[in-house]
Amino acid sequence: MKHGNVIVGQSGGPTSVINSSLAGVFKTARDRGANKIYGMVNGIQGFLDKKYVDLSEHIQTDLHIELLKRTPSSYLGSCRFKLPDVTDNEEIYIKIFKMLDELEIKHFFYIGGNDSMDTIQKLSYYGKISGSQICFMGVPKTIDNDLAETDHTPGYGSAAKFIGTVMKEIIQDATVYDRENIHIVEIMGRNAGWLTAASVLSKGEDCGGPDLIYLPEKTFDTDDFLTRISELRKEKQSIIIAVSEGIKLKNGKYVCELISKQTQAKDCFGHATLGGTAQFLSTLVTREFGCKSKAIELNILQRCSSHMVSRVDITEAFVAGGHAVEASFRGETGKMIIFNRITNNPYQCTTEPFDINKIANIEKKVPLEWITENGTYVSPEFHAYARPLIQAELSPIMVDGLPSHLYNRP
Amino acid sequence: MKHGNVIVGQSGGPTSVINSSLAGVFKTARDRGANKIYGMVNGIQGFLDKKYVDLSEHIQTDLHIELLKRTPSSYLGSCRFKLPDVTDNEEIYIKIFKMLDELEIKHFFYIGGNDSMDTIQKLSYYGKISGSQICFMGVPKTIDNDLAETDHTPGYGSAAKFIGTVMKEIIQDATVYDRENIHIVEIMGRNAGWLTAASVLSKGEDCGGPDLIYLPEKTFDTDDFLTRISELRKEKQSIIIAVSEGIKLKNGKYVCELISKQTQAKDCFGHATLGGTAQFLSTLVTREFGCKSKAIELNILQRCSSHMVSRVDITEAFVAGGHAVEASFRGETGKMIIFNRITNNPYQCTTEPFDINKIANIEKKVPLEWITENGTYVSPEFHAYARPLIQAELSPIMVDGLPSHLYNRP
Repeated sequence: MKHGNVIVGQSGGPTSVINSSLAGVFKTARDRGANKIYGMVNGIQGFLDKKYVDLSEHIQTDLHIELLKRTPSSYLGSCRFKLPDVTDNEEIYIKIFKMLDELEIKHFFYIGGNDSMDTIQKLSYYGKISGSQICFMGVPKTIDNDLAETDHTPGYGSAAKFIGTVMKEIIQDATVYDRENIHIVEIMGRNAGWLTAASVLSKGEDCGGPDLIYLPEKTFDTDDFLTRISELRKEKQSIIIAVSEGIKLKNGKYVCELISKQTQAKDCFGHATLGGTAQFLSTLVTREFGCKSKAIELNILQRCSSHMVSRVDITEAFVAGGHAVEASFRGETGKMIIFNRITNNPYQCTTEPFDINKIANIEKKVPLEWITENGTYVSPEFHAYARPLIQAELSPIMVDGLPSHLYNRP
Repeated sequence: MKHGNVIVGQSGGPTSVINSSLAGVFKTARDRGANKIYGMVNGIQGFLDKKYVDLSEHIQTDLHIELLKRTPSSYLGSCRFKLPDVTDNEEIYIKIFKMLDELEIKHFFYIGGNDSMDTIQKLSYYGKISGSQICFMGVPKTIDNDLAETDHTPGYGSAAKFIGTVMKEIIQDATVYDRENIHIVEIMGRNAGWLTAASVLSKGEDCGGPDLIYLPEKTFDTDDFLTRISELRKEKQSIIIAVSEGIKLKNGKYVCELISKQTQAKDCFGHATLGGTAQFLSTLVTREFGCKSKAIELNILQRCSSHMVSRVDITEAFVAGGHAVEASFRGETGKMIIFNRITNNPYQCTTEPFDINKIANIEKKVPLEWITENGTYVSPEFHAYARPLIQAELSPIMVDGLPSHLYNRP
């Protein structure tokens, strides 16, 4: 059965498993009889510049598919580009659809987060009003886990597994000296605390986990923060605190803005600096208690550490890509694949195409009832939710001592 | 055959495989008929406070030994404590030897780097002049790879493997957008560039590796740095630079001191800040070229990421511990186990006890002939030296999605 030509793109911040979704789209489309499978280079923005490739020239063998699954970051390149409203600029839509028609595209897949789903929403809407037969499907991806309607998003489980793993290691390292020390670990998440909450996964029979966890969902109170540390110092020498980069004060300002805004600190060039949240709190703690404190930023390793992925996550990422193809080949359009959790123990999840209008541009935060009332920890409900998502591993393909990636990037 | 009682301690900064050396000491001593095997808690400093444990109460099974090998950071805790010269303070030596005699210790093992070998040197010297029969042996450990006389040190290979792995991942992530970006990755090493040099291991058929590599062994010239970036910008959009935290200017100052010293930048509390080297250079680059630049610190993950260790390294760490016991049981004292490389391809290395006086307090740097003349890269000789040390893996013991560690830390 022939389904015509297919095009797929990746957009927004990369994850460790976004290429597993690309592999899922490619393999499923190929196996189900797609004619040509194109890849947009640098998403819709690159496509507008006529940057696209015939993916089968790049993914030639089953080994390539396995390597692609294990390659971090967006293989096709990414973009951060928001389509204008059709009422403001119809020309861009006319151009895109003309290009798609020239390539005889029948199915359009976009792998991404909130902003990328906005692209699917707008293109499927324009397709509808312009009478196009092209199907537009979204494939969810974001380490932030903040997409609406879906139980979770591919990319989150692996980031959570990396965070849990390195938190255990950092805690072992942090407690090695017989002296007082306060470590503050900064974790990604401007508005949603899903990743920072994952630091609690380190807690178990071989690790005490972090002492305090601060998410952006709750207002951060500097005085309360210092009071809690003061109490902890009576009990233990080594204190570990996980903070989201996006924690905010009562006045709505980010904590990290305190550095530049309140005190007009300047960097060496005289520019105001927007320092890290952990660095700010670490300096605060040292000033208050006179003890050693270290700020640790987990940085982009959270989203690109493909050497330590969750097998559940990378498999689901692949399935989401495959299911998007299957749904599109059935004629579905204007939808994103979502995950519905059936049971937690044993973990079971199904996928379903879901109306993009109820997903695009909506941010899903950690439920307040999963955060302790005092705002300094997460509840067992979060733990039960996140634990299944980090299960099992996918071994990297090691070559000469290092993980191997798909190398013929377009 | 009974060899009396044994005591072992860990000192200095931890590594991912320092506990493999502890496991090597413990298992070899036990298997060869040691009576009691004590562990100093927090090194010689803790021992002076009577903090020690009977290790067999903590390491009870072979599974414990396997978990211990995979547990990052110093299981026994660590210290940074330099013994005074015996001429300045003989009392401390009298106290230590009295305590050792009370515990009927015949063999003393200390796992550590430069400073720890100073402890072995001083104790073995005092043992000699005071007529003690106790044997003192050093077991090498440091991610910095800066111990004299030995081809390399346990701990380095795993840190190098982690750096090579995440550099590949960071490079994939950094090149994802179709826009100019300069990433500056800061790697540990105040005076020796072994770890920063390991960033070159990322270079291969699936990765271009870093564009520039700066080690502390060569003087850093800010103008030349900017000129080279300016040249690179003509060829490529995404530039990746690896810098050692310890790179210095012609005047002998650390680059990171530029922030605090030359411009008197203040943090939010009015204190001079000692910012990171990468952060400084990143700000410099943005100011000079007006393009996006990101500073990434690999941080303590370099020394504690036991989820990604080199099998060669962790095995050698174990062997070094075991060989120290074997040598001590033969009556050797005042020595450290060193590694002698026989061949590179296939890699073969032997161990040998070596005079501690030629090792303690000496820092081994990257040979200048392994650094390109312009000081911006390392030579193939370095690559050939380091590659065998990162080979193969030791899988973590995964429990419920995360690596498991030995949990009953004393």
